[in-house]
Amino acid sequence: MVERNHAAPPSERTRLRRLREQGSHAPEDVDAVLGAGFLCHLGVVVDGTPMVVPTVYGYDRERRVLYLHGSVASRSLRDGGAGEVCVTVTHVDGLVLSRSVFEHGVNYRSAMVYGRPRAVEDEEELLAGLRCLTEQSAPGQWGYARLPNRRELAATALLALDVAEASVKSRSGPPEDGDGPDGELPVWAGVLPLRSTWGEPRPDPALRASAAAPVWIAGRAGTDATAP
Amino acid sequence: MVERNHAAPPSERTRLRRLREQGSHAPEDVDAVLGAGFLCHLGVVVDGTPMVVPTVYGYDRERRVLYLHGSVASRSLRDGGAGEVCVTVTHVDGLVLSRSVFEHGVNYRSAMVYGRPRAVEDEEELLAGLRCLTEQSAPGQWGYARLPNRRELAATALLALDVAEASVKSRSGPPEDGDGPDGELPVWAGVLPLRSTWGEPRPDPALRASAAAPVWIAGRAGTDATAP
Repeated sequence: MVERNHAAPPSERTRLRRLREQGSHAPEDVDAVLGAGFLCHLGVVVDGTPMVVPTVYGYDRERRVLYLHGSVASRSLRDGGAGEVCVTVTHVDGLVLSRSVFEHGVNYRSAMVYGRPRAVEDEEELLAGLRCLTEQSAPGQWGYARLPNRRELAATALLALDVAEASVKSRSGPPEDGDGPDGELPVWAGVLPLRSTWGEPRPDPALRASAAAPVWIAGRAGTDATAP
Repeated sequence: MVERNHAAPPSERTRLRRLREQGSHAPEDVDAVLGAGFLCHLGVVVDGTPMVVPTVYGYDRERRVLYLHGSVASRSLRDGGAGEVCVTVTHVDGLVLSRSVFEHGVNYRSAMVYGRPRAVEDEEELLAGLRCLTEQSAPGQWGYARLPNRRELAATALLALDVAEASVKSRSGPPEDGDGPDGELPVWAGVLPLRSTWGEPRPDPALRASAAAPVWIAGRAGTDATAP
């Protein structure tokens, strides 16, 4: 059993943690996290209760607008209340395995966006928003797969959320307790990386002609899905 | 440009989607999703506004209790209101690339848990909860790294949430539009899998003795981080 009273003083620990765990409101930091993913957790309030739903998004970096499928948030928006939402995007990069369990943690990048989304009504923006949403997760598909017809467009509820009130938190690098008294413990410490990687495409068994997947799909196999 | 008016009738589409996209309240389905992860998105309401924060969790399957670090939710709980939370855990398994962009989607497993967490006060449960939380992401570490001392325990706010009101949604399998009129389009369709995989451990540069990582850490390299 290892000794239990070797923790660094809190002030020291806090100082070190500040170096590794960072917060930012800089647009480029927010953009980097939003650009590296395609799935967010959308938080809405329904009858006073929080509801957190995973959903895909598209991010228009130039206009700094997030597009989300409206069906998910519609109940909250319809039932009134403020209609304010919180969109959180998180990439987990690894486990921080320190000498003490108290200092165990996670390397991650996370962005939070607050705001009141508006329903996209204009047909031109609806198409642009759907294109953004599609290309975020599946670049190349908008110019290849069948585009939405009028009936499908009419059935699509799309929300646009300005990325104005947004922040990023992240942590990277090795454990923090190597410099304190815990550094003397005979305990291995380090990071166990976690990678999110695209696999080999699996053709739909219902495909009528056997053909290789297009290069913009097949070429992703083995690549990092959350690269900054 | 592909044709735009080949969509299957909505009733047919809905029927097919029902086969692939499933909901469940069965405890074993909830347990499987919660057991396959270690990071959740915790939703709380602060001053009427939803806040969605990523945080690690531990799941005690036998007692069906989720443990969460309390610091994240403390502001919400302290500021009063209902103190109700929503915890969502999501694993993304791949992209569904259909013949039409309208049918594009994601293969995923997601669990949502609603409830009012309680602060863990009892020291025995506090230790058991921290052990559960540590072992969820880093099995083997509780019996190896330095355990919390009294000061650290006193500084730890841990929340326990009964997994009573919980549900799962998931989707798996190939696209759905192969059987409809879109099946005739000369468009490749299938699934692009996404895998979350542990990498090779990276030793802390501050380690005073060079030693290999313990087998319970090193042995995870290459394994699936969200296996069911």
